[in-house]
Amino acid sequence: MKVIIVGGVAAGTKVAAKLKREDQNAEVTILTKGKDISYAGCGLPYYVGNVIPDRAGLVVNTPEKFQALTGAKVLTGMEVTGINRGDKTVEAVSVDTGETSTWPYDKLVIASGASPIRPDLPGLDLPQVFFMRTPDDAVNLRALVEAGGIKRAVVVGGGFIGLEIAENLNSMGVRCNVIDMAPHVLPGFDSEIQEYVENHLADMGINTMTGTRFEGVLGDGKVEKVQTGKRAVKADAVVLSIGIRANTAFLADTGIELAPNRTVLVNDHMQTNDPDIYAVGDCAMVKNRITGKDAWSPMGSTANITGRLAAKNIAGGDVSYRGAMGTAVCHLPELNVGKTGLSEAQAKEAGYDVVTVLTVVDDKAHYMPGAGNFIIKLVADRESRRLLGVQVLGKGEVDKVVDICVAAISLKAKVDDLADMDFAYAPPFSTAIHPLAHTVNVLMNKMDGELESFTPAEFAEGKAEGYRIIDASPVPSIDGAPYVDLTKIHGEVDGLGKDEPLLLVCAKGKRAYLTQNLLKHYGYTNTRVLEGGLTFNRAAVEEAMEEA
Amino acid sequence: MKVIIVGGVAAGTKVAAKLKREDQNAEVTILTKGKDISYAGCGLPYYVGNVIPDRAGLVVNTPEKFQALTGAKVLTGMEVTGINRGDKTVEAVSVDTGETSTWPYDKLVIASGASPIRPDLPGLDLPQVFFMRTPDDAVNLRALVEAGGIKRAVVVGGGFIGLEIAENLNSMGVRCNVIDMAPHVLPGFDSEIQEYVENHLADMGINTMTGTRFEGVLGDGKVEKVQTGKRAVKADAVVLSIGIRANTAFLADTGIELAPNRTVLVNDHMQTNDPDIYAVGDCAMVKNRITGKDAWSPMGSTANITGRLAAKNIAGGDVSYRGAMGTAVCHLPELNVGKTGLSEAQAKEAGYDVVTVLTVVDDKAHYMPGAGNFIIKLVADRESRRLLGVQVLGKGEVDKVVDICVAAISLKAKVDDLADMDFAYAPPFSTAIHPLAHTVNVLMNKMDGELESFTPAEFAEGKAEGYRIIDASPVPSIDGAPYVDLTKIHGEVDGLGKDEPLLLVCAKGKRAYLTQNLLKHYGYTNTRVLEGGLTFNRAAVEEAMEEA
Repeated sequence: MKVIIVGGVAAGTKVAAKLKREDQNAEVTILTKGKDISYAGCGLPYYVGNVIPDRAGLVVNTPEKFQALTGAKVLTGMEVTGINRGDKTVEAVSVDTGETSTWPYDKLVIASGASPIRPDLPGLDLPQVFFMRTPDDAVNLRALVEAGGIKRAVVVGGGFIGLEIAENLNSMGVRCNVIDMAPHVLPGFDSEIQEYVENHLADMGINTMTGTRFEGVLGDGKVEKVQTGKRAVKADAVVLSIGIRANTAFLADTGIELAPNRTVLVNDHMQTNDPDIYAVGDCAMVKNRITGKDAWSPMGSTANITGRLAAKNIAGGDVSYRGAMGTAVCHLPELNVGKTGLSEAQAKEAGYDVVTVLTVVDDKAHYMPGAGNFIIKLVADRESRRLLGVQVLGKGEVDKVVDICVAAISLKAKVDDLADMDFAYAPPFSTAIHPLAHTVNVLMNKMDGELESFTPAEFAEGKAEGYRIIDASPVPSIDGAPYVDLTKIHGEVDGLGKDEPLLLVCAKGKRAYLTQNLLKHYGYTNTRVLEGGLTFNRAAVEEAMEEA
Repeated sequence: MKVIIVGGVAAGTKVAAKLKREDQNAEVTILTKGKDISYAGCGLPYYVGNVIPDRAGLVVNTPEKFQALTGAKVLTGMEVTGINRGDKTVEAVSVDTGETSTWPYDKLVIASGASPIRPDLPGLDLPQVFFMRTPDDAVNLRALVEAGGIKRAVVVGGGFIGLEIAENLNSMGVRCNVIDMAPHVLPGFDSEIQEYVENHLADMGINTMTGTRFEGVLGDGKVEKVQTGKRAVKADAVVLSIGIRANTAFLADTGIELAPNRTVLVNDHMQTNDPDIYAVGDCAMVKNRITGKDAWSPMGSTANITGRLAAKNIAGGDVSYRGAMGTAVCHLPELNVGKTGLSEAQAKEAGYDVVTVLTVVDDKAHYMPGAGNFIIKLVADRESRRLLGVQVLGKGEVDKVVDICVAAISLKAKVDDLADMDFAYAPPFSTAIHPLAHTVNVLMNKMDGELESFTPAEFAEGKAEGYRIIDASPVPSIDGAPYVDLTKIHGEVDGLGKDEPLLLVCAKGKRAYLTQNLLKHYGYTNTRVLEGGLTFNRAAVEEAMEEA
């Protein structure tokens, strides 16, 4: 069996290596345009920040080493330009010599990846403009930073890679502005979470300019400013991380079906509409595991999963991919962010009867050094009580909370299922009530009517209009708000009307919940708790107090 | 409704607080023998190590604060001595005055916890002998260490708390010996894992003496030696952490059913055989979620889960506890350890057709600073392919791997279910193929016959007898073993017999697997891979080489 693989980064090399192990008789050839294979694309921002000191750290495998280890053949500098499905061959052109060649296949794997979007705007050829896609991009940018020529940088695009680059430039002493046309950075998170992160980044010295169009780079021989739809921003370097597009131009006129975004459509075996042609990795369109709808997941993790699975199927196996869930995790200065599953907005769009909760909970035993908070937002379906998604922020192990939810959502857990799970606890790692189980308990209280609350999003939208803000903290903490001490409530509370709309606000949400519980007992009918309390909503609470 | 709760640490306070929130009209009274409530029992070792500097850090709630916050009444220094189920009262004695009193209840909750086992052996009254159960124990031990009087200590009992104390004493400059009568420390782990940890602890300066009976403490007015079944060991202090026993003596003659270990038997609503009497926390016997058999889970986490659940049921709810899974995690010097579910030994005993695998995998992107290994052992049922348990070691986030498995096992996942889950990946957190998914892939390879291997346990048991050890490392790494370079195999290998039993050994196991795959292709019929390679088995491999 002759197998041609177009592309040799994560997905292509995974297919090749696994396929050879499944069938040493298979003749497996990788044709790849670049000079590196299997490089650590996800590590590039960390090379920029000198977290990874050496370029060698970015290269997982050389073509020679890979060939020797796997028995697959690797031809670098070979651009595939066309496919002849009739006689089952691909056309390739040597990048160096321009020579064309023809390669027969029994099975073809498209793993051509994706390339950064390069808008047609002025100034992008200036030497301090970078696309962050190959090791050379990272090497050149860091060299410039280390040479001392970069005081300010603009990162265009507030996705995960853009923010990772901003973090790393920031750590090297470069002042960063992140520009994004979208209303917020961190795509896929809900807007109140995005805003919280934007405020945090500003505190850390990373400014985000959202809702801002990138219109080009200005400068005479070198980058001087970035032109936006609002104003020109001073910069010594620009990193473009606007997004990527699948490298599928060579599939034009082949009859291989593409999605509207030009990724390759595949079935759950990673087969295209031609059963002898597979597509994997960044160039393929997969499904969302929860909704079953098309979802693009251009991630190293998905590349590896789909690559392995395609190899098994090509070798005669019968393995189905159940889809991606939009999982992401990103290291930011003192605030890691992670998510999986559906955001509130996505869940509503998908037609679920959505209920959410947001908590601020200890990430480990509060008395341990380094203990901090997790901010956890859960998204669930009210009817089926199925967990649909999580978003989590914190300086600690947000990836743990995400990964538990990945398992739970994949296995179709109800929120109730998480309440009595025997999660690991010891003071250096977690809390006696696991932070995720704690959040699940609060969500169950809310679903069962024991907690009546506004989410931060509802509060920001003005749903608490007409409610009087009541300070339910252990000591008065909100200027101008009436203060109620939970421990002193033994009946009616002076000054609070029994049917008056009252919004109870404390540091994190818990004490306000206890206060609500007691006030209900004494006949108060119209109280709400502000989820996440002052920790998450301080600015919005202060603004509301000023308005009142 | 009058509710009496016997005991006021984790489980008792949880019942009281949740019950008041469920029903503010309930009259909830905690009767507790000690002077502290709701203290951080799990934090005691960390106070000893000065990780927690102040005693105040150990006390979660004072009785006064707790009463004011929850509305439950707390009476400290009140020992419950008997129950009259006929007239539904309990008898209590004041620890200070000796006065007895009678307390009527509608519902009674036994949350009396457990106490350290105090063997009847000489020397235990010496002032430098400690039981680690209350804040005072930790305070007194640290005071002695800080006063400079303790150069060597013996910890009796190699369970999690014993090892945590040893770690913390060690960090304070005290040389520690851990004595245990069992063949190994770390109960509940499989023996090859236990041995690995024991060797690691020895490297870190913590000596373990297993299979060793504790026979008392010797010394004239102060601790001088610990007498064991083997020899006397010098010591300036002794910490006894032999185990705990449920505080249920006061239930004698009440007709409340106890398990053979004197814990209280309950149903899944945490009710005893008297439906008006509940038991929660360390004094209750729960079920193992996987086997359905009785299981004792005296952990802060289980106390909180069962306490909350009992409160809901007492308040009229209908919530079932599905059981504990033996989850544990423990911080040790440069090697955290965690587990959940069944060990190989437990799974075999429970009658499963057990298959296991052990891998050494990267815990995050190898090029990131602080990256290290996880050693992961998975236990599964061959027939149903259900995941049954995990044991994991590593300097990183072992708790993450454990918690994912807690969710997966609780939701009855097959190993295959974990292979295509969309786990979180970014270089600071994980690897593109998640370490757990990677291990699952290896296990699936093994179950499907693609990998033929010996586990470290099988190797240690002598199952590889008759196999010749072949060094399959990138460069020769095993003195005296024939070396085979995977990248140079292009047919028959000189000196290796096609049907000869060959044990392929590399650093971690992966390269040996690749080598096996290629050798099979060239007609070799009798090869095995040593799981975990030299990283896990170096001493055993060297020993086998010497014998050969």
